[in-house]
Amino acid sequence: MQISKGVEWAAHAAVLLSALPTGRGLKAEALARYHSVPGPYMAKQMQALSKAGIVQTARGKHGGYRLARPAGEITLWDIMTAIEGSKSAFTCTEIRQNGPCGATPEQCRKKCAIAAAFHAAEVAFRESLQAISLVEIAAGVAADSPRKHLRNVGAWLEKEAVAIG
Amino acid sequence: MQISKGVEWAAHAAVLLSALPTGRGLKAEALARYHSVPGPYMAKQMQALSKAGIVQTARGKHGGYRLARPAGEITLWDIMTAIEGSKSAFTCTEIRQNGPCGATPEQCRKKCAIAAAFHAAEVAFRESLQAISLVEIAAGVAADSPRKHLRNVGAWLEKEAVAIG
Repeated sequence: MQISKGVEWAAHAAVLLSALPTGRGLKAEALARYHSVPGPYMAKQMQALSKAGIVQTARGKHGGYRLARPAGEITLWDIMTAIEGSKSAFTCTEIRQNGPCGATPEQCRKKCAIAAAFHAAEVAFRESLQAISLVEIAAGVAADSPRKHLRNVGAWLEKEAVAIG
Repeated sequence: MQISKGVEWAAHAAVLLSALPTGRGLKAEALARYHSVPGPYMAKQMQALSKAGIVQTARGKHGGYRLARPAGEITLWDIMTAIEGSKSAFTCTEIRQNGPCGATPEQCRKKCAIAAAFHAAEVAFRESLQAISLVEIAAGVAADSPRKHLRNVGAWLEKEAVAIG
């Protein structure tokens, strides 16, 4: 069970965007440069976030991305499903219906006990990520960073931010 | 984030083994036939369960598998990690240390807030699966099955079970 690297990148990019004032955004290229990751791959994650309604895009010379809604309303679960989709991790192929003692479809109206247990674990996973918004992450990052580092980030954002309607 | 089909197969096989009396086992071939799944792939899952100490093997003519410890001491988490390994689903590549405003290693002694949130979600997932043993699953299956179906399963097991020391 693996979560793709794109989720890490998208989460970091979204947290950075949450530090921008209203009406300002960052180009995908700047987001890639800030995190020292390949531009096309970062652009791909930003497109997925855009498709999921988490960021908004402006095209053209000053094109860039900004959050589409308040940071407190964007959770890590939103980011993860934007990148990975929301398909269950566990797929039940109903093998209890197979073979010499296979259960009949009528006997299988209730979810298989194995599938139900994995479903419950996935709900626990989801609820944990749904409880953490970009605001909590940004606050955690700020609390762990020396003031000088935060000033550097602020100066970089000031330099790179583009106007975005 | 996907859990491999092998986890489903291994979980079903382990639940079936939990229904056998002490000293009896099933061949991988019989486990495959019972679930109507390809023999070599089922054998591969059983080898992984064996390597993880969840089942014991007897080689030779009457070779087969039985649970290596009481069913109440084998959880779905044990089964899943036997097949998938116990590596975290989320991998933090420390991209906060990258780029023009990269944090120094000294500033990164504490886990990144994003990695910490994914870790917490994975702990919730793990604890949920650790709370469910083969006993609970078998009880769930039995409760959902008509008596006739359970009799069929019992008769099949009686026919196929091999002695295993």
